[in-house]
Amino acid sequence: MTDQLLEPFLDIGKETIDERLNTLLPSSPDLPYGPLFDAARYSLLSSAKRLRPLLVLATAASYGVSMESALDPACALEIVHTYSLIHDDLPSMDDDDFRRGKPTLHKIYPEAHAILTGDYLLTYAFEILAKAPHLSDTQKIQLVRSLATHAGAHGMVGGQVIDLASENKEIDWKTLELMHHYKTGSLLIACLEFGGIIGSAPAADFALLKSIGRNIGIAFQIIDDTLDVTGTLEQMGKPSGSDIAHKKSTALSFLNLEQCQTHAQELLDAALSDLRSLSQPTPLLASLFHRLVDRNC
Amino acid sequence: MTDQLLEPFLDIGKETIDERLNTLLPSSPDLPYGPLFDAARYSLLSSAKRLRPLLVLATAASYGVSMESALDPACALEIVHTYSLIHDDLPSMDDDDFRRGKPTLHKIYPEAHAILTGDYLLTYAFEILAKAPHLSDTQKIQLVRSLATHAGAHGMVGGQVIDLASENKEIDWKTLELMHHYKTGSLLIACLEFGGIIGSAPAADFALLKSIGRNIGIAFQIIDDTLDVTGTLEQMGKPSGSDIAHKKSTALSFLNLEQCQTHAQELLDAALSDLRSLSQPTPLLASLFHRLVDRNC
Repeated sequence: MTDQLLEPFLDIGKETIDERLNTLLPSSPDLPYGPLFDAARYSLLSSAKRLRPLLVLATAASYGVSMESALDPACALEIVHTYSLIHDDLPSMDDDDFRRGKPTLHKIYPEAHAILTGDYLLTYAFEILAKAPHLSDTQKIQLVRSLATHAGAHGMVGGQVIDLASENKEIDWKTLELMHHYKTGSLLIACLEFGGIIGSAPAADFALLKSIGRNIGIAFQIIDDTLDVTGTLEQMGKPSGSDIAHKKSTALSFLNLEQCQTHAQELLDAALSDLRSLSQPTPLLASLFHRLVDRNC
Repeated sequence: MTDQLLEPFLDIGKETIDERLNTLLPSSPDLPYGPLFDAARYSLLSSAKRLRPLLVLATAASYGVSMESALDPACALEIVHTYSLIHDDLPSMDDDDFRRGKPTLHKIYPEAHAILTGDYLLTYAFEILAKAPHLSDTQKIQLVRSLATHAGAHGMVGGQVIDLASENKEIDWKTLELMHHYKTGSLLIACLEFGGIIGSAPAADFALLKSIGRNIGIAFQIIDDTLDVTGTLEQMGKPSGSDIAHKKSTALSFLNLEQCQTHAQELLDAALSDLRSLSQPTPLLASLFHRLVDRNC
């Protein structure tokens, strides 16, 4: 039953997000810094899963909030995710050549321009939150705080620091899980928190949303690690084997493919159990989580 | 008379800002991403003028607000300024080796680490605003909006894009002034707006604060351009002649030293005239502006 809900939600949600992103970042050829917007649009308006904004919309929908109220904050999280990909791909970081099925931004524009495009997108995400329609100033400040916390040192940026420090090194499972949690899980937690904030969720739900985001984030990253080995360029939009090429520890450094699937399933089950304890039923989120763990791209 | 006020304000203000920055960015050696804080502290806790936070404190003081209410937002602007210096100094940008009297961050840490430190500082600035004590949520959202606007594409980042696009090229005076306005003036406008927001300034003051920030920003940058030629390493904390080395157009591409001084003085006079139209007397700001234009470092 829930899958019957999921498909139209994903279709309509993705289309709505894509349209809104296109409007939020207009091309501005007449400005002397117009190339900044061209570069941002190149990276942002790619063929992308839009997982993070869809998570915001699905969570907010659980609390009976219209898509309209959740749309701009959802787009802000996709914009932050895109900035992080642009910076992570840079020559001095992962030095990746492909992303979302096309050359990475620094392969098309000078490296300095790619760095500034990331800086702009991160800054703009906060501007979008500050101007989001239909929300109170208190909600907006809660969103700013959530984003800054989960995208910052004790979140996504901290995860990338651990990642870089772990290259060419043996790390233990605990460090790997911490890295997954910070690098990927943090922003997913922000997605769920965003939905709760926009939906004026009761206080008790926020601890659950955090725990759900943590478990789904690690499950998502474990599946990502397996897809880096089993996925194709067409499926993934980037070449497989990138982790091995960078001598990075991944879930597969500790578990075989089957064990990875089993562990991801355990984390999914924990998330689904927490979902059932929320104050509202969340059929869309449950279906979406199943899809995330069963995906092949 | 005003200069008698200025000296103790600068001394106490700078000490208070330095202490608060030290507290806001604690060293965290036990965290796996602890080097992020070490790098941030290396860049931020340098010997610096603290012009931007002092401008916030001086403006807020004009509206009778305690230093305590303005301190964290003031520090957030110094943090954003520091992130912009770290990214501007990168090898792919200005490739500068010295800043604030010591090697630039990417000379001490890997380049990737410098980029992430900048990302962290920018993100953290918004967190500080969202958590600032003594302010209403509406004031905090106004601060977030002001910062994001002036630090983003139509502000500081846009100015850096114009700057990079202008290297090795002849640009006209209008483009140079636009670049100065965006690259330097924008954040100074944010400083004055911050003071107005924190001080609950009447609406009519904000247009004046913006005009003042714009004129002072361009005057400040013109003086900066002259100091790049006349200043010493000891005075400036970085080698002189950097603009010429980068084949950058500066005010000196159009005006001689004396004409630069005269033009900066005209912009100062315009700012002082606007200051007198504000709803409150601003002796501290007036003294501070005089100091900015007459400085030799």
